[in-house]
Amino acid sequence: MSQAPNPPILLTPGPLTTSMRTRQAMLRDWGSWDGDFNEITTRLRQRLLDIAKAGATHECVPMQGSGTFSVEAAVGTLIPRDGHVLVPSNGAYCQRLARICRTLGRKVTTIDYTEDQQVSPADVDRILAGDASITHVALVHCETGAGVLNPLHEIAVVVARHGRGLIVDAMSSFGALPIDAARTPFDAVVAASGKCLEGVPGMGFVIVRRSVLEKCEGNSHSLALDLYDQWVYMRKTTQWRFTPPTHVVAALDEAVTQYIEEGGLQARGGRYARNCEALIEGLAAIGLRSFLPSDIQAPIIVTFHAPDHPNYEFKRFYTEVKKRGYILYPGKLTQVETFRVGCIGHFGEAGIPGAVAAIAETLEAMGIPTAQARATAEA
Amino acid sequence: MSQAPNPPILLTPGPLTTSMRTRQAMLRDWGSWDGDFNEITTRLRQRLLDIAKAGATHECVPMQGSGTFSVEAAVGTLIPRDGHVLVPSNGAYCQRLARICRTLGRKVTTIDYTEDQQVSPADVDRILAGDASITHVALVHCETGAGVLNPLHEIAVVVARHGRGLIVDAMSSFGALPIDAARTPFDAVVAASGKCLEGVPGMGFVIVRRSVLEKCEGNSHSLALDLYDQWVYMRKTTQWRFTPPTHVVAALDEAVTQYIEEGGLQARGGRYARNCEALIEGLAAIGLRSFLPSDIQAPIIVTFHAPDHPNYEFKRFYTEVKKRGYILYPGKLTQVETFRVGCIGHFGEAGIPGAVAAIAETLEAMGIPTAQARATAEA
Repeated sequence: MSQAPNPPILLTPGPLTTSMRTRQAMLRDWGSWDGDFNEITTRLRQRLLDIAKAGATHECVPMQGSGTFSVEAAVGTLIPRDGHVLVPSNGAYCQRLARICRTLGRKVTTIDYTEDQQVSPADVDRILAGDASITHVALVHCETGAGVLNPLHEIAVVVARHGRGLIVDAMSSFGALPIDAARTPFDAVVAASGKCLEGVPGMGFVIVRRSVLEKCEGNSHSLALDLYDQWVYMRKTTQWRFTPPTHVVAALDEAVTQYIEEGGLQARGGRYARNCEALIEGLAAIGLRSFLPSDIQAPIIVTFHAPDHPNYEFKRFYTEVKKRGYILYPGKLTQVETFRVGCIGHFGEAGIPGAVAAIAETLEAMGIPTAQARATAEA
Repeated sequence: MSQAPNPPILLTPGPLTTSMRTRQAMLRDWGSWDGDFNEITTRLRQRLLDIAKAGATHECVPMQGSGTFSVEAAVGTLIPRDGHVLVPSNGAYCQRLARICRTLGRKVTTIDYTEDQQVSPADVDRILAGDASITHVALVHCETGAGVLNPLHEIAVVVARHGRGLIVDAMSSFGALPIDAARTPFDAVVAASGKCLEGVPGMGFVIVRRSVLEKCEGNSHSLALDLYDQWVYMRKTTQWRFTPPTHVVAALDEAVTQYIEEGGLQARGGRYARNCEALIEGLAAIGLRSFLPSDIQAPIIVTFHAPDHPNYEFKRFYTEVKKRGYILYPGKLTQVETFRVGCIGHFGEAGIPGAVAAIAETLEAMGIPTAQARATAEA
């Protein structure tokens, strides 16, 4: 096995750094037909429902593949072929959601925002009031393109008042930011293993309202991505329909055990919020400004303006920071030069200060003065 | 981590028992955007092409999800929406292939065989000659429903002579049974990580003819399962389009390294053939007959008739054999009571004799006389 002695910490919005205990759960092979494995699946589904307080009303249907596979499965299964979807769009993942709807032949209307704006519940309200043909709203909860937190609860209330369906891409928020099915009405919330639950990537899941799912037979454009079929088969047999990623499932189950031990959503979300604050403050101190106003910044991933200096080049910046033990993420904005740093994953208290120090050293190595350096020079 | 001290050996057609070295490759997290990970993907794709001797003519496009996801991706991407597919059918996986085509709205014609018959190249020839509207043939190489090996090369030659496309589901044969792109014409061969390459489940891949793939833009019914899009993006960036199952990819790369060390296809196929022979002989000696004639039996999984005895019940049989360290597979035939035993996976020379002994002890515990017991009683 070729393996660096100290692999870098991933400050990326999934895959992220997991605990050794989670990875060690993959050291065993499981039979996908066997009762021992099916117990894991059953327990995991129940625990994922519990995180969303959705056990009384919803089902958890896991799905092979990345989170996008689960988003497509939700769209394809829950929205009838003649459905019409409203996608409020303030970033790359909203655009992907709209693209999925179009590829699947569902009619789409978008509300277009800039990447530093939140989706507005009033806009959704106005458009639903004006177009009775819209059957569903598909919302990205935390748009990691720039890092914006969208007001899920307020939008969900609007959508429910209009009697339309709501599908939420909660990929990068689930488990860290509150989603409470007892309080916030939704048809489906979609998330994945390798994000805030700190599992490894390879599966997603959909928390879907039972009364809605029951009516979805035959909607799906796909056999593999048919959530209804997966659910019916799983209910009958406790097994996945097609070969599950057994090791990924076992790792997620182990990660969720640690999630519960840590104190659940409040503890996990709190840790990420502290990471986010330390990151923004730490980089501000060396002159790097975050892109978003703090009131719409989700504590998941932060977009920073690249240093305005002729020596700056992302590729070298990335490589130098990586040499110092941290993997960053490129920016995803089209108009402004940025880079992104994730706040999520299993790394200790030293993680964020370490990353800030690595970035400061990198800027120095690249001959880019930091605010501290400038302040020192001016003193 | 709740883990039995000695997990059972999986005698199942994937997920199967992998080596500790392969599982240990999952102890590291990888950034999906990072160059180190993309090097793994690039190397893996090349090695998979090499196994099929397809580097000069084909591309390897990996896909998230189980093998079925890759089969659906191949059907959806390579067969135009107005295509017409011939599916020769001698088992459950052929039926699944036909079902995928139907779900995706592709016109399907089947040739129906019983589960103990091989697909006949002459039948394919006759039907292609009589129906010019058929654009593609979709063939399962090794039908693990019963364990039949279909004559891929002969069928491929027929399909090519008629100028139609051929998609091969080689899920349970790839890496163990010869598939040589230089000799056997095909548009696509589909396989997965957790089968004869002895990786863990969670990804598939399609070896697809470059000149065919180039023309497939816009065919796909799905965004997630669009092979063309995955290929174009990967060629441009060396990255997967959506989050890859990083640990599964690293494990497959490590498994392929061991595959090469073992001696490649000939060694792997030889080992499985010896397992298969030892299994059939060993169980015959205790009175358990295999279902298929030996000339059409693939050395991957063997279907056995269940003991014809009132005490036999599959569930107890399964549980008792598992207690003794081996996980078997239920039969998949509709007319005859059977069970299946896989010949594939990473287990030592003692694996098959150990399984045979476990089955013999189980029959004894269930009060079902074995041939040996009967012979002793009669002596």
